[in-house]
Amino acid sequence: MKSNLSLYALTEALRRLPGIGPKSAQRIAYHMLQHDREGARQLSVALSDAIEKVRHCERCNTFTEEMVCTMCTSPDREQSLLCVTETPADMLMIEQTLAYKGLYFILMGSLSPLDGIGPKEINLGKLIARATDGVVTEVVLATSFNNEGEATAHYISEMLKARGIRVSRLARGVPVGAELEYVDIGTIARALLDRQTT
Amino acid sequence: MKSNLSLYALTEALRRLPGIGPKSAQRIAYHMLQHDREGARQLSVALSDAIEKVRHCERCNTFTEEMVCTMCTSPDREQSLLCVTETPADMLMIEQTLAYKGLYFILMGSLSPLDGIGPKEINLGKLIARATDGVVTEVVLATSFNNEGEATAHYISEMLKARGIRVSRLARGVPVGAELEYVDIGTIARALLDRQTT
Repeated sequence: MKSNLSLYALTEALRRLPGIGPKSAQRIAYHMLQHDREGARQLSVALSDAIEKVRHCERCNTFTEEMVCTMCTSPDREQSLLCVTETPADMLMIEQTLAYKGLYFILMGSLSPLDGIGPKEINLGKLIARATDGVVTEVVLATSFNNEGEATAHYISEMLKARGIRVSRLARGVPVGAELEYVDIGTIARALLDRQTT
Repeated sequence: MKSNLSLYALTEALRRLPGIGPKSAQRIAYHMLQHDREGARQLSVALSDAIEKVRHCERCNTFTEEMVCTMCTSPDREQSLLCVTETPADMLMIEQTLAYKGLYFILMGSLSPLDGIGPKEINLGKLIARATDGVVTEVVLATSFNNEGEATAHYISEMLKARGIRVSRLARGVPVGAELEYVDIGTIARALLDRQTT
């Protein structure tokens, strides 16, 4: 290993990536050194570039290179609606629906007390300041529907309602295209409770 | 996306890694920027470091930072035995058995004509020069037992036998600890053909 310190350091650095184990890290390192040194060079530059330039939007907390991101400064968005998501990826999913025209706030995580992630880690102070700016009238909670996401939504909902903001949550129910036989009973139970008059 | 060029470039660079799709690339980029900028910095440095320093050993073709790797210069290894593997990872597996004391040659791939990988791409010229140095008397073929590995072994075997070198291949048979009921019939057929007198 002595004659291979930089290969060892590369494998160790790759292992820190989420979802990459020791075997994958080794495979990736070998692949890049054997077949794609240009790709490795690009990745090295992209990493140091991103660390230096990417920051959080002052209004919505998403990743951006500006003080305020282009979404937040867009005049075409409905200013009184604020949708709260866990990640920028979740936000992109909602944008793809074309069903939402308001603004966003990105938590960059969800409450998870067991992992030491409390209200401060997910920027709830920043969210409250944003949601109580006098322009926002409704906050749409679009956190995940797992335990952490539900707890986060509940916590935010209580905090904002105490400050007189209307709070809503994405509807739960049977997915579009699903056959009831293959839907879990928890989802069906929720769809029964939340049934809509037609 | 305009305000996020460096994040976009990072995600695209991560997608070039083997086994990383668009969703994983995005998840890794978000994770590093949100939770592990130090890890991202280390990876950036490790990549540029490895590209610059890692080369191929002049004797065995493995990755090394020297002209000749420490394995090849070790006086404790049997100089007349040469084991041929596809990757440095395969070599490490054989080393872990402690059952082999000779030297190695690493192909850095296997023959795969359909992918445009011919004898030149896997350094067969370098292997022939190495194996016909007058010291090596037996070459042990330890390429994989899939189609590409078998074809590679066959090709090398023919070439070296024509030059008077003894060539052997790792034994095929039932894995240690296996119950016959759960072993595939191809393996059992091979174990019958290659049965050993006890």
